[in-house]
Amino acid sequence: MTQVTAQMSMSLDGFYTGPRDPRTPQDMSGWMRGPEAPGFFRVTRWAVDAAAWRERQGFAGGERSVDSEIVEETFAAAGAYVMGRRMFDAGEVPWGEEPPFRAPVFVVTHRPRAVLERRGGTSFTFVTEGPERAVELARDAAGGKNVAVAGGGELLRQVLAAGLLDQLEVHIAPVLLGEGQRLFGPGLGLGADDGIELVPDRVVDAPGVTHLRYRVAGRSKLVLDDRGAGGDLVAPAQPEQRSAL
Amino acid sequence: MTQVTAQMSMSLDGFYTGPRDPRTPQDMSGWMRGPEAPGFFRVTRWAVDAAAWRERQGFAGGERSVDSEIVEETFAAAGAYVMGRRMFDAGEVPWGEEPPFRAPVFVVTHRPRAVLERRGGTSFTFVTEGPERAVELARDAAGGKNVAVAGGGELLRQVLAAGLLDQLEVHIAPVLLGEGQRLFGPGLGLGADDGIELVPDRVVDAPGVTHLRYRVAGRSKLVLDDRGAGGDLVAPAQPEQRSAL
Repeated sequence: MTQVTAQMSMSLDGFYTGPRDPRTPQDMSGWMRGPEAPGFFRVTRWAVDAAAWRERQGFAGGERSVDSEIVEETFAAAGAYVMGRRMFDAGEVPWGEEPPFRAPVFVVTHRPRAVLERRGGTSFTFVTEGPERAVELARDAAGGKNVAVAGGGELLRQVLAAGLLDQLEVHIAPVLLGEGQRLFGPGLGLGADDGIELVPDRVVDAPGVTHLRYRVAGRSKLVLDDRGAGGDLVAPAQPEQRSAL
Repeated sequence: MTQVTAQMSMSLDGFYTGPRDPRTPQDMSGWMRGPEAPGFFRVTRWAVDAAAWRERQGFAGGERSVDSEIVEETFAAAGAYVMGRRMFDAGEVPWGEEPPFRAPVFVVTHRPRAVLERRGGTSFTFVTEGPERAVELARDAAGGKNVAVAGGGELLRQVLAAGLLDQLEVHIAPVLLGEGQRLFGPGLGLGADDGIELVPDRVVDAPGVTHLRYRVAGRSKLVLDDRGAGGDLVAPAQPEQRSAL
């Protein structure tokens, strides 16, 4: 059954890229010299070191590591992608004539544009009716495989807020960046007394990154408890959180 | 040898408590009804469920789980604590006559106050000369055991920014809160091209929380690489990040 999944790299303090500077030129070489790039390169380095990532990019070398297996698994599981417009703009040139996706990609944008067909099975379809419609189109195109949210953070938050995400994998790079663009934030539309509950599904502990995968259980009221004073806790929010070890 | 350590619970999106509301009364029952409490209760629930935490509070019951072992280990390793003034204010009443620390606690504050002696080995000493001085005093008092930064987030960031932290353990609660007070943030004084590098040291994967422990390697320049195009990466920032799996 098709699952809607997301896989994102972030620093332990929650950033997936450095800070945005509106004065940075919008082209690729401007972005590379701007403040976003150092943080982005740091949190994604584990993937760039991995053989499976390099193969998809047409590069030689790389490590045959558990990280590489995770990259491979992620690409293999996705039958279609949804992507934010800003990520597409940054990637269009460097991905070249044979982008790494090898599947249909649905780009959420306000600007209509004709479908781009690329070599190796990648196509880019521009969807102006919002994230939910892009996920719907990707689901139809995925051939029973998963729909992967390719990024960036804004699209991920929209898909989460709409309750469309089934699985979330966060690759935590062992670094504190202190500033930058946060993967998560107020865009989720949560108040002080509700949260989106996750259920830990898999933890892979590699030397240069920790892969945390969760099933998204959904929106839930946060509850106060008696801090253990009564012997038993009052009204746990999620029964699966209470399971014995 | 004494290590300066910190152990903090946070949501996957980086919050250790709900949002602060300046209109909330500063007493405990006001705090409990305010917007901070639901998020705080959610991210710390794993500890409240643990037998070792309840024992320290004088409560019965709880689970003898790997979480409980981690609580026990953390208390056992600490010979002294440093604590922020706001955390002390919130804890003074509920901790009562026999607080759970059973060791000297050094509270960083602007308000001088006489030492408080409590039962069971806990004392609170109020340090007005800043976090570095508090850590120094705690180190002298720790009898060769660790100095633990008890919290909150502001003190943790100050200790990190000053380069005083040796080990950081973050207990990641499987929830997205969307808003609240962030454990990490701009208080670290990092620019867009530098970070604080961490080395993963231990990952413990429990059903209701993931325990990530790091050695703090220190401040380091972030570098751009060639994204693998040249076969070998250019100038990796940290040799230990490149180790084979």
